[in-house]
Amino acid sequence: MLATSLTPETDFLYGRIVSHIAEQISGKLIKAGDKLPSVRALSKEQGISISTAFKAYTELENMGLIEARTKSGYYVKYLAQRSVKLPETKMPANEHCPTSVTDMIAMVYNNMAEEGVLRLSLAAPPLSLLPLAKLSKSMMEAIRNSPTANVHYESVQGTPALRKQIAKNAFSWGGHITADDVVTTQGCKEALLFCLRAVTKPGDTVAIESPTYFGIFNVMLSLDLKVLEIPVDAETGIDLDHLEQAMDKTDIKACLFVTNFSNPVGSCMSDKRKQRLVNMVTERQIPLIEDDLYGDIYFGDRRPRTCKSYDTEGWVMLCSSVSKSLAPGYRVGWCIPGRFKQQIINIKMMHTITSATPTQAAVAHFFETGRYDLHMRKLRKALYTQHLQYSQAINNYFPEGTKISRPAGGYALWVELDKSIDAFELYKAAIQKNISIAPGQIFSTDARFTNFIRISFGIPYDDAVDKSFKVLGGLVKGLMN
Amino acid sequence: MLATSLTPETDFLYGRIVSHIAEQISGKLIKAGDKLPSVRALSKEQGISISTAFKAYTELENMGLIEARTKSGYYVKYLAQRSVKLPETKMPANEHCPTSVTDMIAMVYNNMAEEGVLRLSLAAPPLSLLPLAKLSKSMMEAIRNSPTANVHYESVQGTPALRKQIAKNAFSWGGHITADDVVTTQGCKEALLFCLRAVTKPGDTVAIESPTYFGIFNVMLSLDLKVLEIPVDAETGIDLDHLEQAMDKTDIKACLFVTNFSNPVGSCMSDKRKQRLVNMVTERQIPLIEDDLYGDIYFGDRRPRTCKSYDTEGWVMLCSSVSKSLAPGYRVGWCIPGRFKQQIINIKMMHTITSATPTQAAVAHFFETGRYDLHMRKLRKALYTQHLQYSQAINNYFPEGTKISRPAGGYALWVELDKSIDAFELYKAAIQKNISIAPGQIFSTDARFTNFIRISFGIPYDDAVDKSFKVLGGLVKGLMN
Repeated sequence: MLATSLTPETDFLYGRIVSHIAEQISGKLIKAGDKLPSVRALSKEQGISISTAFKAYTELENMGLIEARTKSGYYVKYLAQRSVKLPETKMPANEHCPTSVTDMIAMVYNNMAEEGVLRLSLAAPPLSLLPLAKLSKSMMEAIRNSPTANVHYESVQGTPALRKQIAKNAFSWGGHITADDVVTTQGCKEALLFCLRAVTKPGDTVAIESPTYFGIFNVMLSLDLKVLEIPVDAETGIDLDHLEQAMDKTDIKACLFVTNFSNPVGSCMSDKRKQRLVNMVTERQIPLIEDDLYGDIYFGDRRPRTCKSYDTEGWVMLCSSVSKSLAPGYRVGWCIPGRFKQQIINIKMMHTITSATPTQAAVAHFFETGRYDLHMRKLRKALYTQHLQYSQAINNYFPEGTKISRPAGGYALWVELDKSIDAFELYKAAIQKNISIAPGQIFSTDARFTNFIRISFGIPYDDAVDKSFKVLGGLVKGLMN
Repeated sequence: MLATSLTPETDFLYGRIVSHIAEQISGKLIKAGDKLPSVRALSKEQGISISTAFKAYTELENMGLIEARTKSGYYVKYLAQRSVKLPETKMPANEHCPTSVTDMIAMVYNNMAEEGVLRLSLAAPPLSLLPLAKLSKSMMEAIRNSPTANVHYESVQGTPALRKQIAKNAFSWGGHITADDVVTTQGCKEALLFCLRAVTKPGDTVAIESPTYFGIFNVMLSLDLKVLEIPVDAETGIDLDHLEQAMDKTDIKACLFVTNFSNPVGSCMSDKRKQRLVNMVTERQIPLIEDDLYGDIYFGDRRPRTCKSYDTEGWVMLCSSVSKSLAPGYRVGWCIPGRFKQQIINIKMMHTITSATPTQAAVAHFFETGRYDLHMRKLRKALYTQHLQYSQAINNYFPEGTKISRPAGGYALWVELDKSIDAFELYKAAIQKNISIAPGQIFSTDARFTNFIRISFGIPYDDAVDKSFKVLGGLVKGLMN
């Protein structure tokens, strides 16, 4: 959409104008149906050329924020995300559920991998949004720069160059971290597993969000842990009062929360609430495993902070990776385990000795060259646009009364359907039409979210996606009583 | 050593002559002190040029098999490995030992990584023996050939191209395997861990060799398993009668054995004994985890078979990797789990979802191009020579009565010292001199092998290594009562 012929300066101005108008719309300073200044007026007002002004409106149109009406001009569009209610928070039915629903999860996973299926269930970046050529260049340069061609065993803690970059990047989320605080892992999931292993024993209880990413249940099951589900609000995040009561009642051995762009609801906890959470766990000496996998995928002005940034006593273990931002298949992740560093290193040595040298070195090189920041600016912009387009599509094709979350980042929309809908039935009907969605049931241990679905907006919006939403909307209507 | 100016044909002849003489010496057809034909006579006898005959003798000299005496000709050397007794088999003191000695292991690991230390404790290939440039080429070609630049998530079971090559390579050890039988992992250690997790629960008992690789204790400890140590003979391998009795007495949930070039003793079980072992576990339905990490590093004519090759009922789970043969830092391993395949895939999904795509693709490419076979021929030859040189050095510098194993492959010599020697004291004295050896204590749970050390011969023999052996020999003599 962005014309490549624009000069850097015009590009800068143009970008500013687009975000300025987008913000005014989100902030409801301009309302749905409001007429916008003409292209000529905008050009005059902002001191830009007519063609740049036109391009800015075209992009806002592509973002689904405004619409052109023939012979009339540009208007703010009626938008799902500003009018549709937020999905409801559901309280967990009973507190210590055995980790079940695994059959449903396995089924969704398997169908996801089938050929020709539109994967609206996969919360990951599509390859078209990833810098394949530049990352390959980093891989090759890193091999060339290494006297061992990166064939050697890396130190157990992880490639020093990568740890240094991770520490540097921590500034963006308010962290004061050194390379020595970081342990690299094979993706974020391994980091979470190592952290859980470091601070729990089989039979222990761990507090997690509800709804939560279904992959977490697998990990819990594999470690023979009990889960205690804490409700998470689609806007404010984990219910801290509920958590505090649970901590007083139950012997919680660890918390595992996604504080930024919780999956699936997309909430981002405020700084104040993050600080309160850190105080709560520090006072009680309960390790908090902070899954910050989506932290870099923010739609707002700046990178949200993490709980880790408020952690003075080392009770927060931050886990993340580049799987959602840069290279899923590289399996490069890390954790910053605070006071549990030595345990994590020992566990890593037991599991795999070291992580793969070439992939760590390539990602370190990609960070060092500044390529990551550049790439992330583009990726965030694309995902922001896509989340608006997807919301709009749901609004267009789904029945009246459908509620959609308003994520401030990440990859997923959490959609509440009419109470009469069984999301797993919808899932099965959709997969027949080669559309894969994630049914709400798999986001809790007791299959509680029966009338919810998670829709991931990673795939760029095109006619095929649009058509699929039309089909999905029809299926929803057909299943309604 | 091998002159590159030789034509392929001469090279072939020359290689045949060298191995022919080497075999005659090992087979004692020519004995220590015997005079060899003159260079001229050899040339005539074999129909090769004088210069090729001379080069053959020079290589045999470099291999430590023969020696040139001034103005007299070439003689078979007095060789440690043919004259020194094999180390003793020690029976485990008690059967269910808690996994301890972890402090000693951690100490040895840490010292190993220090700068300037000669790592005679590290049973791994040195970079100088690895095909760095060709492997990097495979990495780059694999990225170029991939439409996704290998950035995508691979299937949980592993890269199909790699699994296909692993299945193909299985022919060399007598296996009839398809790509679908293989699950890739992050190195052999992860494969072993997954297998143990698939077939045991905390508190279960697993039979392992004694002495055994100390890394195994860490894995056992991390899974809360009890170990039952079965004595392993330096020549014939695991004591099957002892194992059979143990199976009848104890509820063994799994066996974990290195059947080819057991670490540290270097024994290779005969085909007959392998078959008997498979029958034993199949009858009793006890899973056998076969660690075949060293199988490709054979010194004889052909690749030894595996227990897996006799496995008709799927009770053998073979684990291996390229860490000891090609690329330690790539962390590319696999297992062929027989009837436990689905469990292994599930466990892998819980741990790390998938293995890294680029490293798997690079190794697959390296296999496909035939580069692996070529490289392995060179590596085996180098290691065979080195193991003779190292044995000779121990024989030269260590006190009379020292016993050395005669490995038929792998990376390690198992050395029995005088009973008055405390190997851990020797280890501590050696590390002061910047020489790292593995003390016998860390190869059993009850620190039983107090007067043994493991010496790895991965590092090419040079003056520095020679000097270190002189120093080590002096230390041993100093510690003797």
